[in-house]
Amino acid sequence: MSLKLFELVGTDVSRPFSPFCWRTRMALAHKGFSAETIPWCFTDKDAIAPHQSEKVPVLLDGDSSVADSWAIANYLEDKYPERPSLFGGEGGRAVGRMMNWWGDIAVVGGMFPLIVADIPPHLKPVDADYFRKTREVRFGKPLEEVAAGRDKAVEGFRRALEPMRQTLKTQAFLGGAKPNYADYIVFGPFQWARVVSPFKLLAENDPIHAWREKLLDAFDGMARRSPGYPV
Amino acid sequence: MSLKLFELVGTDVSRPFSPFCWRTRMALAHKGFSAETIPWCFTDKDAIAPHQSEKVPVLLDGDSSVADSWAIANYLEDKYPERPSLFGGEGGRAVGRMMNWWGDIAVVGGMFPLIVADIPPHLKPVDADYFRKTREVRFGKPLEEVAAGRDKAVEGFRRALEPMRQTLKTQAFLGGAKPNYADYIVFGPFQWARVVSPFKLLAENDPIHAWREKLLDAFDGMARRSPGYPV
Repeated sequence: MSLKLFELVGTDVSRPFSPFCWRTRMALAHKGFSAETIPWCFTDKDAIAPHQSEKVPVLLDGDSSVADSWAIANYLEDKYPERPSLFGGEGGRAVGRMMNWWGDIAVVGGMFPLIVADIPPHLKPVDADYFRKTREVRFGKPLEEVAAGRDKAVEGFRRALEPMRQTLKTQAFLGGAKPNYADYIVFGPFQWARVVSPFKLLAENDPIHAWREKLLDAFDGMARRSPGYPV
Repeated sequence: MSLKLFELVGTDVSRPFSPFCWRTRMALAHKGFSAETIPWCFTDKDAIAPHQSEKVPVLLDGDSSVADSWAIANYLEDKYPERPSLFGGEGGRAVGRMMNWWGDIAVVGGMFPLIVADIPPHLKPVDADYFRKTREVRFGKPLEEVAAGRDKAVEGFRRALEPMRQTLKTQAFLGGAKPNYADYIVFGPFQWARVVSPFKLLAENDPIHAWREKLLDAFDGMARRSPGYPV
């Protein structure tokens, strides 16, 4: 088979970011796949339009294309059931849907104001303009103003992770003894932040910090090899 | 077999409350069991001391006893694997641990200040005193003061349920097409509130309201038959 993945990048194509693309990249590795990357920038809408999407990730699998990280995880699980399971059964997949929303809202959404101002310098001018304009409309203020209170705001973000922190007291990963897609849902956003921002999202004595270290090391250090800031 | 469940009650023993006991009651029904109830009040510590617990639920299964709703769910799943699964496989159980913490923190914790002042009138004087004293220490103020701003505070509670609300847009239950323990984790707290408080936790047009209606009807309306306030 021939797998290719459209991944969001900025000026440095060796530095893919996007919480959602990283979820997919980890899911592919979990299934034992290493898809060829197709670097994609925010304003390259034409490149993915044939795949009925305006956003990445978009996975190409031979003649098939699948957009959206959750849809891709389900596609991989259904298409390649003989490979290691992403969900650990139908119950894991069902409640995984809720985990995915929690990841989008509490993790991606909680992180975004903390790191958003660090993103434009990583982008080509045309993408930086696009990013700044669309995100400033969303926040209703300049990105620098959004980020200004982050030393304080990070406390709320850390508190919102408490259910995960408690879980990691009795099991190594959200997926149990080994990581699965539930972990990648949360790790994707952390890897996004690591690639674009020097801001410390987690205290070093946080069990989630230790968990993140293990996922940076997973798959022969795949995520750690991607250039990023020290975490 | 002979199953018995210590369940928290107040002056009306036909009105068991406690988010955790209701999780267990629903889990038992899911497995096809109807355990005999042993009414238990906050200050009856001696009654459950032999079972190494200071809190309910405590399940008695013949000569075995198990305390703590999460431990009981796991016990039932492992002891009675031939009956309908509570988790839908090991992946569901693993991420269910996180759901349980989310349920404790966001749902029970979010609901508690909204309904806490309605609880003492349902208790015997000795239990009402115990409850008020221990909870007022926890909140650092009188229960009536905790509840005073609830018309406003309920908005934050509803927002915190957004990951669940989004999930219910594409599947009927957190467990998928049918409810499982992931649903009971969240339903338990709602049933607790329904039994002790007239306060409206959910807007009627909230998808979580419709989901709760379905769980009130589950198992031949078991939860709805338990006396409570209109929701």
